[in-house]
Amino acid sequence: MITKKLGNRLRELREQKGLTQERFALKIGIDRSYYAGVELGQRNISLKNLEKIAHGLDLSLSELFKGVEENGAEKPC
Amino acid sequence: MITKKLGNRLRELREQKGLTQERFALKIGIDRSYYAGVELGQRNISLKNLEKIAHGLDLSLSELFKGVEENGAEKPC
Repeated sequence: MITKKLGNRLRELREQKGLTQERFALKIGIDRSYYAGVELGQRNISLKNLEKIAHGLDLSLSELFKGVEENGAEKPC
Repeated sequence: MITKKLGNRLRELREQKGLTQERFALKIGIDRSYYAGVELGQRNISLKNLEKIAHGLDLSLSELFKGVEENGAEKPC
C-alpha cells in the first residue's frame, strides 16, 4: 500500500538526518503523533502535508516519490 | 500553491489524453465534482487519491510531480 511504502521511506530519510520524529515534526510544523502515524502508514496524508515533509527533508515531491516507488518491497511489520 | 500547480498539470495531462473530467473521474473511481475541484486547485487531495490519478494517467507519482514542479509558473485564472 502506498501509505505504508511512503512511511517506510520517510522513516529511512529522517533517520539518515539523525532526527527524532518529535524534532522533525516540530521542524515542519506537523503534530508529532500525526507524523508518527504517517511513518506507520496509518494516515492518508494530504498534498499540503506531503509538501511540508518533502521540503523538511530537502527534497522535491518527485524526488521523494522516486524513492518510495523504487523501494517497492514493503518491510515486514 | 501546490494544489493549484497540481491542478493545472492534471488538466493538461487529461486533455492530452482527450478525456473529459467526467470520463476521467469515472475511469479512476473518483467523484466527478471532487475531481473538478482538484483541477481547480481547491482540494487538498490525499495520497490515495493522488495515486489513483497518477495511475489513471499511466504515470508514477514521481513522474506526475516532476511535471508539477518543473511547470513552476501558475497559469492566470
